[in-house]
Amino acid sequence: MLTGLRAADIITKKRGSPAFPHGQELSKEELEFLVQGFVQHKLPDYQIAAWLMAVYFNGMTFAETANLTNIMLHSGESINLHGLADKGITGPFVDKHSTGGVGDKISLPLAPIAAACGVQIPMMSGRALGHTGGTLDKLESIEGYRVLLDKEEMCRIMARCGFVMMGQTQHIVPADRLLYALRDVTATVESIPLITASILSKKAAEGSDALVFDVKCGSGAFMKSREDAQALAESLVNTAAAMGKKTSALITDMSTPLGNTVGNFLEIEETLDCLEGKGPADVMELTYALAAHMLLLGGKAASYDEAVSRCKQAVATGRAFELFMQNVEAQGGNPSLLLQQRGRRRSPHHAVYKAQRSGWLDIDALKIGLAAVRLGVGRNRTEDAVCPDAGIVLHLHTGEQVRQNDNIMDIYAKDAAALEQARPLLDEAVRYCDEKPQQKPLVYQEICS
Amino acid sequence: MLTGLRAADIITKKRGSPAFPHGQELSKEELEFLVQGFVQHKLPDYQIAAWLMAVYFNGMTFAETANLTNIMLHSGESINLHGLADKGITGPFVDKHSTGGVGDKISLPLAPIAAACGVQIPMMSGRALGHTGGTLDKLESIEGYRVLLDKEEMCRIMARCGFVMMGQTQHIVPADRLLYALRDVTATVESIPLITASILSKKAAEGSDALVFDVKCGSGAFMKSREDAQALAESLVNTAAAMGKKTSALITDMSTPLGNTVGNFLEIEETLDCLEGKGPADVMELTYALAAHMLLLGGKAASYDEAVSRCKQAVATGRAFELFMQNVEAQGGNPSLLLQQRGRRRSPHHAVYKAQRSGWLDIDALKIGLAAVRLGVGRNRTEDAVCPDAGIVLHLHTGEQVRQNDNIMDIYAKDAAALEQARPLLDEAVRYCDEKPQQKPLVYQEICS
Repeated sequence: MLTGLRAADIITKKRGSPAFPHGQELSKEELEFLVQGFVQHKLPDYQIAAWLMAVYFNGMTFAETANLTNIMLHSGESINLHGLADKGITGPFVDKHSTGGVGDKISLPLAPIAAACGVQIPMMSGRALGHTGGTLDKLESIEGYRVLLDKEEMCRIMARCGFVMMGQTQHIVPADRLLYALRDVTATVESIPLITASILSKKAAEGSDALVFDVKCGSGAFMKSREDAQALAESLVNTAAAMGKKTSALITDMSTPLGNTVGNFLEIEETLDCLEGKGPADVMELTYALAAHMLLLGGKAASYDEAVSRCKQAVATGRAFELFMQNVEAQGGNPSLLLQQRGRRRSPHHAVYKAQRSGWLDIDALKIGLAAVRLGVGRNRTEDAVCPDAGIVLHLHTGEQVRQNDNIMDIYAKDAAALEQARPLLDEAVRYCDEKPQQKPLVYQEICS
Repeated sequence: MLTGLRAADIITKKRGSPAFPHGQELSKEELEFLVQGFVQHKLPDYQIAAWLMAVYFNGMTFAETANLTNIMLHSGESINLHGLADKGITGPFVDKHSTGGVGDKISLPLAPIAAACGVQIPMMSGRALGHTGGTLDKLESIEGYRVLLDKEEMCRIMARCGFVMMGQTQHIVPADRLLYALRDVTATVESIPLITASILSKKAAEGSDALVFDVKCGSGAFMKSREDAQALAESLVNTAAAMGKKTSALITDMSTPLGNTVGNFLEIEETLDCLEGKGPADVMELTYALAAHMLLLGGKAASYDEAVSRCKQAVATGRAFELFMQNVEAQGGNPSLLLQQRGRRRSPHHAVYKAQRSGWLDIDALKIGLAAVRLGVGRNRTEDAVCPDAGIVLHLHTGEQVRQNDNIMDIYAKDAAALEQARPLLDEAVRYCDEKPQQKPLVYQEICS
């Protein structure tokens, strides 16, 4: 750490002054002084809080965000998968990150499809929090499936299946955990450069060489507006480029739930449908689009069309389905039991949600996600348990016509009370329009570095 | 304190959101929650730091600033001078506050002049810090003069002389002391509403019913630009109005030192000159202007011109001089000794600063102030001692013509080393122009509530 630096001067530089009304870019040394000082308890939290708020207002350049990301990355352990070719860990290592949505199970079919096409995916995922689901909770709804793996198991599974799906260890990017906790209580979460550094530092620590981002926008997304989603996508791609990492980003719609299911085991079932080529059209389309970008970044296809074609082939031949089942077995699940339970394992607390009147449907992602939390799919606090068999099966979707009393969805709850508690939110989620609502594209935009 | 309030929500409200991009006004209850929570150590400093930075960027309304001022005011003791008429404490109680400058000794002649015209002035002043002088340090250069008084002494002296000049007690506005310390290390000092609340809460606690502000602008002022000074003046006047207090503000020039002297005892001598009606023109003019506004606020004159005329009368009759000498005696000084030392008490470490070339002079206030600190007039840290006899006597001023080797100033230092250390700053302070620099007005603007 350089001597002579003063936290108050660095905060002032970011905050701005008459000569620099929008603040100035901080140097790598200045950011190191702040972040290392914070992590090592050499600087008081209040100075970091003031800096975070100044960043909220004045932003950061991509180079500055890249420096912050690297400093955060080096605050903890990183997984290095290179030099393990003799163990079948050959790369290219490409991962996907979604900013989260409702019914977003894309990671589950995507990983085996991309793996079948020759990229290797060291996928570290999160748990449900708020109205969005968590890949780890979905996977754990498979009886026996383990997401806490040590590095040896991780490598063994990746060598065998081409992908591994696991939780983050505590040693990955401690600076992000500490900064996030401070941002949470100082109203500095909603800052695009800080979000960027948080996502990229974790993804960089997980051993991927290239990344595809699914930046969602709409009511069910973290970024509600198209503009904010675009700003985040550009920040992710440009900051990663400044770090020398190859990335692509898709801006995709999250105004209505993705696919037919919202739930943990329900989404595993939909994953199996997708891997058999018969998943819902939107899930299939988005999975192919994201997987194709992974192949392009990993050098496993010469063009986007070729990449999509290879992904479809991996499904058509059954190779992707086979890899998924191998992964289930390798991570502690029982493939035969999974197939046996498929379509049968449901919570007994069940109801049919019927159309209250006729019209064109408009189903809101956020409200469905919040209803799903009440049903037991998600959690309100990190320490809450989730119910694997709760959830929603949508039979009709936004843009489809409905007649009064048609069955819009089946709902499954953790208990009888939850079934009732979810209903008002479902009433808010479903709108009946007199005209067909304008069809939103699934993918708004692609941003490549 | 209300329950149900959460600091993070309050910070978010001030910070803003897509619906309120510039944040919202906080309620009295929300401000109380923050400030009382901070003072009582119920809220962590980092949340207050984040709020302060959000205020830096989004400002506060005058009503909000008035609420903050009142909450800070009530964090400690206030002096109430009402109901003491039998002891000669009759009011009206009017004070003056200057944002600080170089050679700004206006408080010293102003208090006895205004007192001679019938207002009573409970004047609490500060010490030198940075490049600006401190009224308390100047007063203490009078041998024996005491600025630490208890309330009984304060009242006795005010009843006798009509004014008292003293330091703040530790019990006045503890919230300001705590907030200022946090602002100082989180780059949130330069916020007009926070500066306003800090000034007004202290002044309100000191027992004045009405206030005249001298808001200085230029290199030697806290506010460098005319626009910033105007914003601060309007904030002070409007916030005070929202608190039900009568105020006026003058925006005055501080691009060049005020008067002929910068120093502690040197400025006491200039005060005596002023009280004899022979002080420098700028000091006389500004003293009369500020004192006249005090008379107007105190109801002791019907018009500005009448007020100025009464002030001039107080000088011409010798009444103001007499009151000053009574005050010196009442606060522990020796009037005869003071008159004996006048014009004679000088530091032996003396030099003459001569013009390096011919031209029109432009003398910079900030650089002269910084040179004076090196000479020993001021202090770099609050715990430093000041030298009563150090300082600068200016024989020529901005806008005057000089020939090479003319004596521009006499300088007096605390020691031989300081004499040399000040010289490079004096070289920077004095510019020789080929054309006469544009004359700046002494008073730019008056703002009355």
